[in-house]
Amino acid sequence: MAVNLPAIQAAQLLAIDGVRLATANAGIKDNDQADLVLIEIAEGSTVSAVYTQNAFCAAPVTIAKRHQQQAPPRYCLINSGNANAGTGQQGEAAAISCCRSLAELVAAKPETVLPFSTGVIGQQLPVEKIQAALPNLISDLSNDHWFDAAHGIMTTDTLAKAVSKKIVIEGKSITVTGMAKGSGMIRPDMATMLSYIATDANVAQPVLDNMLKQAAEQSFNRISVDGDTSTNDACVLIATGKAGSDQLTDLNSASAQALYQVIAEISQQLAHAIVRDGEGATKFVEVTVEQGQNKTECRQVAYTIAHSPLVKTALFASDPNWGRILAAVGRSGLLDFDLSKVAIYLNEVCIIKAGEPAADYTEQKGQAVMDNSEITIRVVLERGQATDTVWTCDFSYDYVKINAEYRS
Amino acid sequence: MAVNLPAIQAAQLLAIDGVRLATANAGIKDNDQADLVLIEIAEGSTVSAVYTQNAFCAAPVTIAKRHQQQAPPRYCLINSGNANAGTGQQGEAAAISCCRSLAELVAAKPETVLPFSTGVIGQQLPVEKIQAALPNLISDLSNDHWFDAAHGIMTTDTLAKAVSKKIVIEGKSITVTGMAKGSGMIRPDMATMLSYIATDANVAQPVLDNMLKQAAEQSFNRISVDGDTSTNDACVLIATGKAGSDQLTDLNSASAQALYQVIAEISQQLAHAIVRDGEGATKFVEVTVEQGQNKTECRQVAYTIAHSPLVKTALFASDPNWGRILAAVGRSGLLDFDLSKVAIYLNEVCIIKAGEPAADYTEQKGQAVMDNSEITIRVVLERGQATDTVWTCDFSYDYVKINAEYRS
Repeated sequence: MAVNLPAIQAAQLLAIDGVRLATANAGIKDNDQADLVLIEIAEGSTVSAVYTQNAFCAAPVTIAKRHQQQAPPRYCLINSGNANAGTGQQGEAAAISCCRSLAELVAAKPETVLPFSTGVIGQQLPVEKIQAALPNLISDLSNDHWFDAAHGIMTTDTLAKAVSKKIVIEGKSITVTGMAKGSGMIRPDMATMLSYIATDANVAQPVLDNMLKQAAEQSFNRISVDGDTSTNDACVLIATGKAGSDQLTDLNSASAQALYQVIAEISQQLAHAIVRDGEGATKFVEVTVEQGQNKTECRQVAYTIAHSPLVKTALFASDPNWGRILAAVGRSGLLDFDLSKVAIYLNEVCIIKAGEPAADYTEQKGQAVMDNSEITIRVVLERGQATDTVWTCDFSYDYVKINAEYRS
Repeated sequence: MAVNLPAIQAAQLLAIDGVRLATANAGIKDNDQADLVLIEIAEGSTVSAVYTQNAFCAAPVTIAKRHQQQAPPRYCLINSGNANAGTGQQGEAAAISCCRSLAELVAAKPETVLPFSTGVIGQQLPVEKIQAALPNLISDLSNDHWFDAAHGIMTTDTLAKAVSKKIVIEGKSITVTGMAKGSGMIRPDMATMLSYIATDANVAQPVLDNMLKQAAEQSFNRISVDGDTSTNDACVLIATGKAGSDQLTDLNSASAQALYQVIAEISQQLAHAIVRDGEGATKFVEVTVEQGQNKTECRQVAYTIAHSPLVKTALFASDPNWGRILAAVGRSGLLDFDLSKVAIYLNEVCIIKAGEPAADYTEQKGQAVMDNSEITIRVVLERGQATDTVWTCDFSYDYVKINAEYRS
């Protein structure tokens, strides 16, 4: 039950010239849903990617990183239902084998294929099933298949996540379309869950790399469902240049900044969609910490609140149990922390002022905020100029149910 | 539903000469259960206490710390059902007021009273209810009332936690009795949940202080139910000297070490009881990390596993989903972490060896371990000589239920 996340419509997703997509059901998942997605990237495109910082990264992450250094990427081969993580050398061999099989069929070098997997950890990848599905997959390639692809990468997601935007840069119409999947083991760390964003703009490699890094930092790297960083997180940004616009070679130029804004908006929208569809989520919660000494300590306080099982279960119960927020702030570990300066707000309702219960707080005011499905928790530290924000969801019976029954 | 935690019997709890206890129902809790406990400590006793490191510590913690510096403690006045935390200056005035009322009735100085509270955060303490119950409370004082007192300090605990042990030191029979309460907002940080341990041994103040600090470090400070450090944690160790034994003035003497061992055992037994009775717990889980560079990094890895909602829900489901343990180890943030040396075990079953899936692992072996109600997760880092252990429980529907319905 996603929080205020409307189902996407196929017509809302705009094709990107130079990017074709295909989806197939290879039988990896137990159910009848699609589980294999191929993204074909036109020659001459620039491609940037960021990956999970989890030390136990999955086999496809290792191989994708290696391939990216060996050749310009032309294909992303993505399976859901099996993460190919914790699978050792056999898992790496399996990922390479899939890349080779695809490369043969499309007459490309194996190194031009980036493999991605998401699903259950610790089971060997069913390579034969994937190989058997490749011919049909390739024949399905089309510019118009973003909608199906967004569904094909889902695991415990209840809704597909994708969005398109158009802008005009230097007189040329530019399109950006992105998709992502969640929805458990979500606390991206300098990377993201699986997400693919493409544009027909022409962007130089270092500029594209910086755009992706910055956009991920302000979106995917600021969300948490359960504090668990996945072994398989990856985010790919593709620029095909097919719109015919001049190449963007300076990130600080007005044109590059205009494109970056759109990419950042799409990244944030997809990141929020992952939280809104977080496992068992019934609330979408923004946690903002203001007036910290630096962004790092703002995030430290924000994540302590966002990860507190007691805060998250109170949110689930719509209980204005602000004592748990206060306790989380208090244990967040800031040095020389002067409580007498702290203020805490639920939306616009002040609950703590100068470290003391706010005189005009009433249970009714707190309850009115908590009854919403979208809530902002704001902490003002009054010890600096920095601000940072993270987004999270609540902790429900369904989170336990989903994770007691599903193998991630 | 506590995990392998038998109900205590009144006859198992041994009186400590010099310590009298009393319990009353002051009507602070909504139910009919006792919620006010008084511990009277004989003059000439030594008393040591450690308190929560949560920066938003509760009013009674602030007052107890202050009183302890002003006079030798003679009384611990403990209420359950209201934490008197997040209550500002009014909360401190309330705690002082309770201490004064008691002091008047027993003709003592208010500074000899240490106040303690546990329960809902953010509601003002019902001082009048406590004051009204004091005369009956005082008349109930007896050496034999540990059993009732252990029940009177409970909040969401399903079982009372208390234990007694006897040893002979230098020919004198010495008794140690302790009690504690949990069972949510449990991740003590250099302190404990509410716990009171008393002995009739004669122990010099600095020796008693060190005994408590060390014992808490190896017991209460190594457990976590939900990662949330309480605002009210406190642990008190009382030595009355009434056994007539010589004063222990050197912690390293054989006699002091013998006493310390008993205090440490009781602390660990009470700490484990808190985890066994953790909110919604169905499994008791030991997480041991071996061959780390130092104890700090061992704990860092152990707590990352112990706090992972995905690991905890898999434990609840008795699912040998070791991929989640591997993912938690991988995100625990160790520097220069060489995966190829890591081994992970479920009890004696090896799941990861030299960073690869163990060749002889089978789902049946993993399932056989997970079907137990007591499980050890052991991670071997092979990068040093240090070992550390934490204890935790699983994450069940009932944890969400308890915390969506109860205000802590």
